[in-house]
Amino acid sequence: MSSLYALILAGGSGQRFWPLSRNARPKQLLALFGEETLLEATLRRLDGLVPPKNILILTNADQEAGVRKLAKALPPENIVAEPARRDTAAAIALGVGWVAARDAQATMLVLPADHLIQDSVGFQKTLRTAVSAARQSGELVTIGIQPTWACPGFGYIEMGPRIAVSGDGPAVHDVTRFREKPNPELAEQFLRQGNFRWNAGMFIWTIPAILSALRRHAPELAEFVGALHSGADFKKMLLDAFPRLPRNSIDYAVMEKAGRVLMVESAFDWDDVGSWTAIAKYLPQLEGGNVANTEITGLDAQNNLVFSTQKKRVALLGVTDLIVVETPDALLICNRHEAERIKNIVARIPPELQ
Amino acid sequence: MSSLYALILAGGSGQRFWPLSRNARPKQLLALFGEETLLEATLRRLDGLVPPKNILILTNADQEAGVRKLAKALPPENIVAEPARRDTAAAIALGVGWVAARDAQATMLVLPADHLIQDSVGFQKTLRTAVSAARQSGELVTIGIQPTWACPGFGYIEMGPRIAVSGDGPAVHDVTRFREKPNPELAEQFLRQGNFRWNAGMFIWTIPAILSALRRHAPELAEFVGALHSGADFKKMLLDAFPRLPRNSIDYAVMEKAGRVLMVESAFDWDDVGSWTAIAKYLPQLEGGNVANTEITGLDAQNNLVFSTQKKRVALLGVTDLIVVETPDALLICNRHEAERIKNIVARIPPELQ
Repeated sequence: MSSLYALILAGGSGQRFWPLSRNARPKQLLALFGEETLLEATLRRLDGLVPPKNILILTNADQEAGVRKLAKALPPENIVAEPARRDTAAAIALGVGWVAARDAQATMLVLPADHLIQDSVGFQKTLRTAVSAARQSGELVTIGIQPTWACPGFGYIEMGPRIAVSGDGPAVHDVTRFREKPNPELAEQFLRQGNFRWNAGMFIWTIPAILSALRRHAPELAEFVGALHSGADFKKMLLDAFPRLPRNSIDYAVMEKAGRVLMVESAFDWDDVGSWTAIAKYLPQLEGGNVANTEITGLDAQNNLVFSTQKKRVALLGVTDLIVVETPDALLICNRHEAERIKNIVARIPPELQ
Repeated sequence: MSSLYALILAGGSGQRFWPLSRNARPKQLLALFGEETLLEATLRRLDGLVPPKNILILTNADQEAGVRKLAKALPPENIVAEPARRDTAAAIALGVGWVAARDAQATMLVLPADHLIQDSVGFQKTLRTAVSAARQSGELVTIGIQPTWACPGFGYIEMGPRIAVSGDGPAVHDVTRFREKPNPELAEQFLRQGNFRWNAGMFIWTIPAILSALRRHAPELAEFVGALHSGADFKKMLLDAFPRLPRNSIDYAVMEKAGRVLMVESAFDWDDVGSWTAIAKYLPQLEGGNVANTEITGLDAQNNLVFSTQKKRVALLGVTDLIVVETPDALLICNRHEAERIKNIVARIPPELQ
């Protein structure tokens, strides 16, 4: 059986969690839930599935130091900082080339570093099924998350018929097509129809399968991967060729165009925790619909979310629907219904606090 | 001419400025306006009018250390901590006894430590007139503040005819009577009538005048003062007799009952800065009606007041009419229209943070 690798994409920016997140400390490097950061949890979920030496983390220069501190179990050369932001297609091509240079028959997982998944057992079960499906079929495989509401903020996967795969893992389906972020009405329709899943940006494939897809749909990326595969100097390719790759998402560059894609039903909880409001349900629930990671005293205070890195006493008087986030050098007071605009306020603050 | 003494009442609690104020650090010990605390400003305003050795500060055990740190120019024995809270009548009796024991013919000022008065020249001019009036008339004298609005939260002084006093100071009037805090309608009427002034709790009298008034209207206090006057041990009186004095305000115990009282028109600005909302006009005025003592970044944020002891960057998004106060160990987010209830929230927080 071919060896298993994992590419962890850990270069996302984290403006939506400002002031806790900063350019150098995005969501995946935060301990939003207890003591463990999302990146550490992502690595922990691979324990026993992918050996550390087979895990590559892609990040960027701002975040590299933070990532290295958390990923000490990996060989240092397995943490790579992209010299420029090129979106997921180029990042994944870099990862495919890195893996191909080590084992041209390998199977690889592509995983975001900034999602919250609590059920590690269900996660590994799902991934093992996906790996089997990728190896047996020779196709690209993705994971489908059962939608819990008609979210217009995610891409969707339209499922086709279930297909037979050996083992007792979760169901595997043909993908009919990928659907971009729908408008709210269409999202409602997807939910009603029942055969739509959220696209969580997790992919599983063999090196031959992704190389073939890249050659067909993204020749520039295929050429880049081919050079790495045939022994070109990684560092040189990273610094010289990588920044010239097109800016594109893997969905648009490859997945939506690929002839056949399989989807494995997720057998685990999943949350992309895309904003402060999304983490409310994981914080201690207090009186009046308030949630907080610290001691609060409320009087006529409802539905507020309070997060203090210093675990300060916070008193709320006559206030409703606020997000209050306090760090050693900044304080955010935000109307809960305006959380989507936090990135707009970050753009207005001095760069050293961004 | 008899010597001049001043009694500074610096024992008030400061819950309305929580979390900046604490039991051990009430309003008068805060630097709400620039670098100087209200107590320091109160002492500075007496420069050249009352020598430090003639100034007595009454405070309480919680605040004593803080007061001593700020009032280094005074002899240590001139700072006295009351062993129990007994309201203004008993505190003033203690001060009268302390002065009488030093100079039975002295004139004394009674001044609160927690008001904001920026015009020191006008203040001294007013006080000099009051001292002259007290000495010439042998009556109790108070200061009347010209009302700027129909505030129902202050006591009022109803003025009678202007009386002749030597010198070119502000006008001196007979007091017709003291009026307790009016309801809003009555306060409006006071403002329209024009012959009402705010009672700022400042008094000026000679020792014989106050002794005579106490004997007539507050015999228990007169007895206490008499003992101090005739040489009783101050410390012993403070610890044993003082805590048994009746709880009463000087207005109720003496001023309202006194036969004749004079009032000097204030020739200075005055603000009792009774709450966070009251200090808004002294803080830097920023875009959108926001005021702050620190750098703020606002987006759809109006009429907020921000005070950060750590001068943190504060970002406000989609919020209106908030009071945000941040200290090293606590954070208050308060609806501006509910500021009067801050004391209620303080009652709910752990004692060590009160």
